[in-house]
Amino acid sequence: KSLIPRLPESSPTLFEAKKARNLTFEDIARKLGREEVAVAALFYGQAKASPEDIKNLSELFDVPHEVLENQLSAWPDRGRTLDMPPKEPLIYRLYEIVQNYGYAYKAVLNEKFGDGIMSAISFSTKVEKETDEKGDWVVITLRGKWLPYTRF
Amino acid sequence: KSLIPRLPESSPTLFEAKKARNLTFEDIARKLGREEVAVAALFYGQAKASPEDIKNLSELFDVPHEVLENQLSAWPDRGRTLDMPPKEPLIYRLYEIVQNYGYAYKAVLNEKFGDGIMSAISFSTKVEKETDEKGDWVVITLRGKWLPYTRF
Amino acid sequence: KSLIPRLPESSPTLFEAKKARNLTFEDIARKLGREEVAVAALFYGQAKASPEDIKNLSELFDVPHEVLENQLSAWPDRGRTLDMPPKEPLIYRLYEIVQNYGYAYKAVLNEKFGDGIMSAISFSTKVEKETDEKGDWVVITLRGKWLPYTRF
Amino acid sequence: KSLIPRLPESSPTLFEAKKARNLTFEDIARKLGREEVAVAALFYGQAKASPEDIKNLSELFDVPHEVLENQLSAWPDRGRTLDMPPKEPLIYRLYEIVQNYGYAYKAVLNEKFGDGIMSAISFSTKVEKETDEKGDWVVITLRGKWLPYTRF
Amino acid sequence: KSLIPRLPESSPTLFEAKKARNLTFEDIARKLGREEVAVAALFYGQAKASPEDIKNLSELFDVPHEVLENQLSAWPDRGRTLDMPPKEPLIYRLYEIVQNYGYAYKAVLNEKFGDGIMSAISFSTKVEKETDEKGDWVVITLRGKWLPYTRF
Amino acid sequence: KSLIPRLPESSPTLFEAKKARNLTFEDIARKLGREEVAVAALFYGQAKASPEDIKNLSELFDVPHEVLENQLSAWPDRGRTLDMPPKEPLIYRLYEIVQNYGYAYKAVLNEKFGDGIMSAISFSTKVEKETDEKGDWVVITLRGKWLPYTRF
Amino acid sequence: KSLIPRLPESSPTLFEAKKARNLTFEDIARKLGREEVAVAALFYGQAKASPEDIKNLSELFDVPHEVLENQLSAWPDRGRTLDMPPKEPLIYRLYEIVQNYGYAYKAVLNEKFGDGIMSAISFSTKVEKETDEKGDWVVITLRGKWLPYTRF
Amino acid sequence: KSLIPRLPESSPTLFEAKKARNLTFEDIARKLGREEVAVAALFYGQAKASPEDIKNLSELFDVPHEVLENQLSAWPDRGRTLDMPPKEPLIYRLYEIVQNYGYAYKAVLNEKFGDGIMSAISFSTKVEKETDEKGDWVVITLRGKWLPYTRF
Amino acid sequence: KSLIPRLPESSPTLFEAKKARNLTFEDIARKLGREEVAVAALFYGQAKASPEDIKNLSELFDVPHEVLENQLSAWPDRGRTLDMPPKEPLIYRLYEIVQNYGYAYKAVLNEKFGDGIMSAISFSTKVEKETDEKGDWVVITLRGKWLPYTRF
Amino acid sequence: KSLIPRLPESSPTLFEAKKARNLTFEDIARKLGREEVAVAALFYGQAKASPEDIKNLSELFDVPHEVLENQLSAWPDRGRTLDMPPKEPLIYRLYEIVQNYGYAYKAVLNEKFGDGIMSAISFSTKVEKETDEKGDWVVITLRGKWLPYTRF
Repeated sequence: KSLIPRLPESSPTLFEAKKARNLTFEDIARKLGREEVAVAALFYGQAKASPEDIKNLSELFDVPHEVLENQLSAWPDRGRTLDMPPKEPLIYRLYEIVQNYGYAYKAVLNEKFGDGIMSAISFSTKVEKETDEKGDWVVITLRGKWLPYTRF
Repeated sequence: KSLIPRLPESSPTLFEAKKARNLTFEDIARKLGREEVAVAALFYGQAKASPEDIKNLSELFDVPHEVLENQLSAWPDRGRTLDMPPKEPLIYRLYEIVQNYGYAYKAVLNEKFGDGIMSAISFSTKVEKETDEKGDWVVITLRGKWLPYTRF
Repeated sequence: KSLIPRLPESSPTLFEAKKARNLTFEDIARKLGREEVAVAALFYGQAKASPEDIKNLSELFDVPHEVLENQLSAWPDRGRTLDMPPKEPLIYRLYEIVQNYGYAYKAVLNEKFGDGIMSAISFSTKVEKETDEKGDWVVITLRGKWLPYTRF
Repeated sequence: KSLIPRLPESSPTLFEAKKARNLTFEDIARKLGREEVAVAALFYGQAKASPEDIKNLSELFDVPHEVLENQLSAWPDRGRTLDMPPKEPLIYRLYEIVQNYGYAYKAVLNEKFGDGIMSAISFSTKVEKETDEKGDWVVITLRGKWLPYTRF
Repeated sequence: KSLIPRLPESSPTLFEAKKARNLTFEDIARKLGREEVAVAALFYGQAKASPEDIKNLSELFDVPHEVLENQLSAWPDRGRTLDMPPKEPLIYRLYEIVQNYGYAYKAVLNEKFGDGIMSAISFSTKVEKETDEKGDWVVITLRGKWLPYTRF
Repeated sequence: KSLIPRLPESSPTLFEAKKARNLTFEDIARKLGREEVAVAALFYGQAKASPEDIKNLSELFDVPHEVLENQLSAWPDRGRTLDMPPKEPLIYRLYEIVQNYGYAYKAVLNEKFGDGIMSAISFSTKVEKETDEKGDWVVITLRGKWLPYTRF
Repeated sequence: KSLIPRLPESSPTLFEAKKARNLTFEDIARKLGREEVAVAALFYGQAKASPEDIKNLSELFDVPHEVLENQLSAWPDRGRTLDMPPKEPLIYRLYEIVQNYGYAYKAVLNEKFGDGIMSAISFSTKVEKETDEKGDWVVITLRGKWLPYTRF
Repeated sequence: KSLIPRLPESSPTLFEAKKARNLTFEDIARKLGREEVAVAALFYGQAKASPEDIKNLSELFDVPHEVLENQLSAWPDRGRTLDMPPKEPLIYRLYEIVQNYGYAYKAVLNEKFGDGIMSAISFSTKVEKETDEKGDWVVITLRGKWLPYTRF
Repeated sequence: KSLIPRLPESSPTLFEAKKARNLTFEDIARKLGREEVAVAALFYGQAKASPEDIKNLSELFDVPHEVLENQLSAWPDRGRTLDMPPKEPLIYRLYEIVQNYGYAYKAVLNEKFGDGIMSAISFSTKVEKETDEKGDWVVITLRGKWLPYTRF
Repeated sequence: KSLIPRLPESSPTLFEAKKARNLTFEDIARKLGREEVAVAALFYGQAKASPEDIKNLSELFDVPHEVLENQLSAWPDRGRTLDMPPKEPLIYRLYEIVQNYGYAYKAVLNEKFGDGIMSAISFSTKVEKETDEKGDWVVITLRGKWLPYTRF
């Protein structure tokens, strides 16, 4: 697959093991005690695996611990998978939300919190599914620490 | 302010009226029965005002109904306020979330919903504030209809 | 061919099988009960094959079912084949139509349908040939669901 | 409105007259014997008005013939209204269709017509509305002359 | 050579055969009954070879007909060789001519022909050499069909 | 017209005088003893007017010599009118010719002339119209001095 | 000055008052109890003025408090002054440091602190001058809170 | 790892030796008598190794002197590792500091030093860690020679 | 002239005074004891005027000293006049020299001077004219201090 | 080294031979009777080798004449080594000189020579070293033929 040259060497190992065991991100997330998005980010090299994660993944996938430890030891070099603006329609929709509502979020956040930003590091996110008579709905929650600008 | 040439003519009218009355987006949202982010988006020309919105804004701001109706009659020409990548640190953090977690969201959503996208049109969003011993947290919720690709 | 590194591994399998059997997209589309453009999109990794498609392609091409199933199991990572603006003259003409008539389409659609978009997901398209005394004409039809903006 | 500096001087004249008379593009198209999209393109300076168009517009809008003739006399300088990639969600969806299906269209067209392009000049387009139990559907038709490459 | 990954597989075959036989584009053009620029374009994968071209090239180069037929069977995917703006000084000069005289050409063509374009598809071009006391001169001729915009 | 801020102050003077006198570029070119394209380039500020040109234009347009002399005295700051890639369909076709045939021109020119470039400065160009039973044809001739690279 | 259209309306007020009183950033910083860089950032609209800052600036510059309060009341819309890559040689040197040493900083910081970032919001910076026999040296100190990635 | 094609051949040698010996940049820096950032820059091919550095690295890593000397003999071709704007969040924060405070630094430096720049060549930098009750802080120091513009 | 919005306010003053007095850059350079290029750079806001320059310019142009002093007091905000790549053919040729010979200069300079750069700040440049039987030649000399990288 | 895929096949041959024989560009230039920069340009595939150059290089490097002749026979495809803006600090400084002084050079050259350009083809350049009490200085000379615009 054409993303591979941009991914760390751990990615094929993880995706192939997942496919071979026929596991979902939900299964893996439950095992690791993490959110599905975090697990998927870890698969794409966008998050750091803790020693427990490595141990759990090794057990779950029956991949030698030392292989995973070696491949997952580097500090994530985030942001390599995706060129902006995204061409993938699903990811583009998220980008469009930022483009269309960016200043609206800023205006509301400044009013509610003052001068600062929502951290994307002290941050967690999750995805949920809701279903009603109109069909299925995706609910994405972004939760980040408010960081006020330091006065200096 | 330098954003003005990129905003519709309704924007200065609305922002000045809001400032003069010293109203928050929360106040206005309550009056309009809409979310704060939707109200801010309307101020930036990124959302359409309904006739009731115009009536309510006219009352709240004591601006002649006909002025607002005239200025808010155009179909929004969305996306003019913001150049990508965003330079504003607050908005950049949202962009970075898309960049870093884009493929992770896609992987999880495909697994949970199949082949499709989360709509950014059949869509709503809101901002909430949580406070704990570590400080304040921003919680942004994105809720969009799942649209499966049509088979043709 | 130089597109290959940007295509999923299923693409060479499919294109070679098609060439070896000397089949047209029309032949394949008839067998699959799909539109020619959808079939070509599937070949380029821009559309998802259903289990029936895989079964039909396997029969038609005499490629082991398991090979195709394996290669076509990934969720399409759309948008990788083409850099914008397109350099290919045929594709550029389509791009030019969007550039030249984009606002005209928007103005007419807003007037006819209100505030919203034509979906590119709940969407189908087809290509037809017409011939008259002046020569051949291409007729491309785009049909997408109208999605009104949610009021929130 | 912020598009104005990028539009020819005829645009405000035409849009204001249309608004004042409360006419739709459909009304104007009927009067001019042209397609709605062509009329909207003419309003945005993307199409040339014929002498009959000018005469008809002058009558319909009760704008002095000489004013319109003067403002509409320049050769259209097409492509000034829209930056690519489009930020407007409605127009972006059309762009995305080109991006996602570009090579699929090319593959099918080459197979059906040979080596050439669909003209965007010997070209017409129209927009139609269909409604079924699932809601409203937009149908856009693109019809262009097939131009084979000259052998030289 | 570094262009190779961007060229179709026929290109090395053709260039190497040409070099081995020590033939000029002029020689080949004479054999094929085509213009030199068309032949060079064919070598770079920017033009389609007809069955006669393949037969003639096979004879001239003593390359098995079936090899050439196979490598030249794909529809040209034009525009892959060159990134714009061109960095090569010779090609940049052509680009500069378009940049500097683009609007002048348009103004003159509109005046002489009306509202339309010169086709780059129903098109031929040739290169000639002239010599006078000041030195050598390149004369490039571009000849394209005038396509008026369809009124619709 | 929206090009005006990018044009020198002489441009509106010249275009308005031309329109008022209802003269074509051909008329003016005949008076000045220059090519039509050169005249149009001069109107767009892409070429230098000689003292005789100024004198002739002043007579032809009945504009005071001193006005024209003053406005046309600056050294042309070429290249300001056009952003690349060009959005205007007519100009884009010329750009596409460079993109598609760039390396082919280079290959043929290197073979015919050696290592060098065709000058775009010691250069002239003209536009001609041919008509046959298939319609009208544009013939553009580019003639530039061949400059060999200096050996140093 | 050509930056003005990109600056908030407070900027000319502040720069002119500073010039009229012949004050340095050092003078103003001392009065406000802030760092010089913070003061300059405030002048360019890149930092928020506190009520005390406004009071102090009003006294120092003898500008009516209400004028400053009004002009400085908006939330900073950061990042509007500078296009990247910077063209200004002084600012480019800072950009080059990031470009050349970016991965080196990351490698060292990951090793010293773990997986996270240095905040640019919980952040302060200052500029100092050192002089030795070789001449003058600029010392810029960047001090930011280390934010570890949240595990989720 | 995906950065490798952009790094000189010395990089894998050095990173693997470092990992095998389990050494930190701090360890290596102490051995070489250099700053940690300089050492990391050397690993990424962004700094030149002196003969002593090569000797020391050879001893420390037990890699044949001649291997290192050979791989480290080229003049650094700086700037190949990082595309701007940086996608990596840690590096982006440094970029953002330049973007947000660029003109503020310039204003303060011009006032303190006159017309010139801070050199990024006659330059050193270091990273330190501070810890207080609020957590850990990164302190980056940039020290560069002030270069006044030559009057000529 | 269309460059004006990007130039400091001193530029029109200086260019108009120069034109009114019919002075060449050579005349002014002689009066100021500076190089012609430095004088032209000063006119475009790319260099700083010293108090003597201001005094000399005031005398030469008979413009009140205080006007010039006021307009020329700002620190130059260099790099605003020119977008890269340059579209102006004359300036493009200089850019092309950097593009074509950039690595060659680097290779030769590293070999002659070691690891470092030629300063563009401790730098002067001049333009000379030579004439021989082949015509006129431009000789541009760039002279900059060699700055070795600091070892740290 | 990471530049290699962008270089012609002759480059590794030449660089390795140079390194093996421990020759400087100065040595090679003397042997070839060419300038050092021209030699380095030839090594990077930016200049054409004459038959004498090939003979001389073959002797000097003791590389079979036929190998060099074969590898150096292609017409240079200039401009492939360097992306603009250059990231390498040494090359960036040259780029910055064009950016900062581009219009100044143009203004002086127009005044001294009229309407035209300095050729980058009928062009030579050299690098010299000067040393004084302040240190080392680089002197780069650019010498190009003045080409006046043809009047047509």
